[in-house]
Amino acid sequence: MGKIVSIDAMGGDHGLDVTIDGACLALKNQKELSVILFGDESLIKEKLKNRNYPIDKVEVIHCNKVVEMDTKPIDAIRRVGKESSMWGCVNAVSEGKADVAISSGNTGALMGLSTIILRTIDGIERAAISSLWPNKSNYSVVLDLGANIEVTSDQLVQFGILGYSYAKSVFDKDNPTIGLLNIGHEEMKGTEIIQEASLKMKDLFPKDYIGYVEGDNLSLGKSDVVITDGFTGNIALKTAEGTARLIGHFIADVFASSIRGKLGYLIGKNAFRALKDKMDPRELNGGVFLGLNGLVVKSHGGSDILGFSKAIEFSTKLSQSNISSETKKLIAKKKDYESRD
Amino acid sequence: MGKIVSIDAMGGDHGLDVTIDGACLALKNQKELSVILFGDESLIKEKLKNRNYPIDKVEVIHCNKVVEMDTKPIDAIRRVGKESSMWGCVNAVSEGKADVAISSGNTGALMGLSTIILRTIDGIERAAISSLWPNKSNYSVVLDLGANIEVTSDQLVQFGILGYSYAKSVFDKDNPTIGLLNIGHEEMKGTEIIQEASLKMKDLFPKDYIGYVEGDNLSLGKSDVVITDGFTGNIALKTAEGTARLIGHFIADVFASSIRGKLGYLIGKNAFRALKDKMDPRELNGGVFLGLNGLVVKSHGGSDILGFSKAIEFSTKLSQSNISSETKKLIAKKKDYESRD
Repeated sequence: MGKIVSIDAMGGDHGLDVTIDGACLALKNQKELSVILFGDESLIKEKLKNRNYPIDKVEVIHCNKVVEMDTKPIDAIRRVGKESSMWGCVNAVSEGKADVAISSGNTGALMGLSTIILRTIDGIERAAISSLWPNKSNYSVVLDLGANIEVTSDQLVQFGILGYSYAKSVFDKDNPTIGLLNIGHEEMKGTEIIQEASLKMKDLFPKDYIGYVEGDNLSLGKSDVVITDGFTGNIALKTAEGTARLIGHFIADVFASSIRGKLGYLIGKNAFRALKDKMDPRELNGGVFLGLNGLVVKSHGGSDILGFSKAIEFSTKLSQSNISSETKKLIAKKKDYESRD
Repeated sequence: MGKIVSIDAMGGDHGLDVTIDGACLALKNQKELSVILFGDESLIKEKLKNRNYPIDKVEVIHCNKVVEMDTKPIDAIRRVGKESSMWGCVNAVSEGKADVAISSGNTGALMGLSTIILRTIDGIERAAISSLWPNKSNYSVVLDLGANIEVTSDQLVQFGILGYSYAKSVFDKDNPTIGLLNIGHEEMKGTEIIQEASLKMKDLFPKDYIGYVEGDNLSLGKSDVVITDGFTGNIALKTAEGTARLIGHFIADVFASSIRGKLGYLIGKNAFRALKDKMDPRELNGGVFLGLNGLVVKSHGGSDILGFSKAIEFSTKLSQSNISSETKKLIAKKKDYESRD
């Protein structure tokens, strides 16, 4: 069935230079896709000129204002307000005009607007940012990656529900395993909040909760879903990005430093390209906001055309899943379980 | 001047198989070094047979007991007690018989024993685990890496003092820069504790405190010293280790998957070896416990002979520094500053 993706055409480091061609590329790859582009109408139409795309599948909705990359969430809501392309794009989901919204704009502002416009699902106190973490064989779903600095044990369990539903419905895992990020696997490790959350997770996911996972387990893929607070998750994500970049630098350096190294690099060039692809963040979509009454995808601010198109294509997949009903089923199970205490 | 290192000969995953040969190798490389080996005397002497080492620079002190890798800190103190090789080795520093203690045993137990035996320096409430984090050009000192799950803002500032003194005195940085690990560089980011600590750091290190650093800045080497709580630090460290291991796996995989890849690998083999060395954790020592009235080095549990010898050699360097007087100078400065408020 055809899906409609609403796009914040003004968002991201490169704005229209990336979003318009990204949308055209996604429309070429996904025949069932329609898009609504929110932003400066004349600029968008100018960009669309001479582009090859199915005209009946593209709608442009004019918005006067733009949420800048450094706009504070509170200002995005109060000062920039409802006339921004970001607001329009999320609001289209709330009004049922689109199935999913995507923006590569400022994460904090997008989360702020999304929470106000879509509100959290009944039984979920806080929305969370999730992303896919690469491991040897596949990806793990990790959340929260920065929306909630401090959380209660119950909120961690709610994140568990969100991550589990996501892994199950979008990545077709029948019984995803789920772990809590901690600094050791023994029961007495970590904060009281984590220890409490662990007990609750055991009750809610008796078969699939595997207990604590450590930082290195993220890349080892020890569990399909990894739950943490937004502070720790953000530090872990950025640390991994920094480490990958550092190693990339070492690789370039080492091969450039000798003739045999250079020669080896030239001969193995394709292998290197394959490695680069494997580490290419564009192959991953950005983050997905979970826990709201509506789907919002946050593409990387620095996304290029390919990256943005991949994120749109992923958004379609997301909107075709039954993540919402999976989430509600688990919330009901949690309520049922709690009422028995 | 000759330095004496007390060694927990029974510690680590490989025990005597690594510690004895590691000590012999360090003695060969550092002519001024003497060691005291704590552990099972007959086993140690058996191992020392046929080894080439300066007999007058090795003392063996018999200990009945061993702290196992999975012994809980509280049991290491109460149950195993003073007869363990770990206790003996740290106690030698307290009694002035050795300049620095080294163990590759269980980190929690070693920290527990060390704190009880050596006590924290006046003005430092909690000892911290520090380590060196590789970056493009050099290393940064990062702490705490796991000793203190939850900290106050004042304790973070104390860690700042410890890290700064360490970078200055052991790595000869005149004015090390210092940063606080956080999830953004803007003032309003992070927890209240971090925000409070940041204000205090500004006062204590008006020139050298550079504000917040993010997870990716660890590998970019944005500051010479990075301060964080033990929970976040441990997650970051293990995440980086996991990421490096995952990339290593991808590299091996990609080059093994095509003939040209294999050929490129063979020709560039030396370059690859240089890369591996650069990423080799053995070239780094393990952690250093900071904030105690005495120096304790924690070598990796899985250290091999080369890794353990490097850690011993680093211990000597540490004991030759004026880290203790640097720390005390800064504590005095902090007290002076506080009394003016």
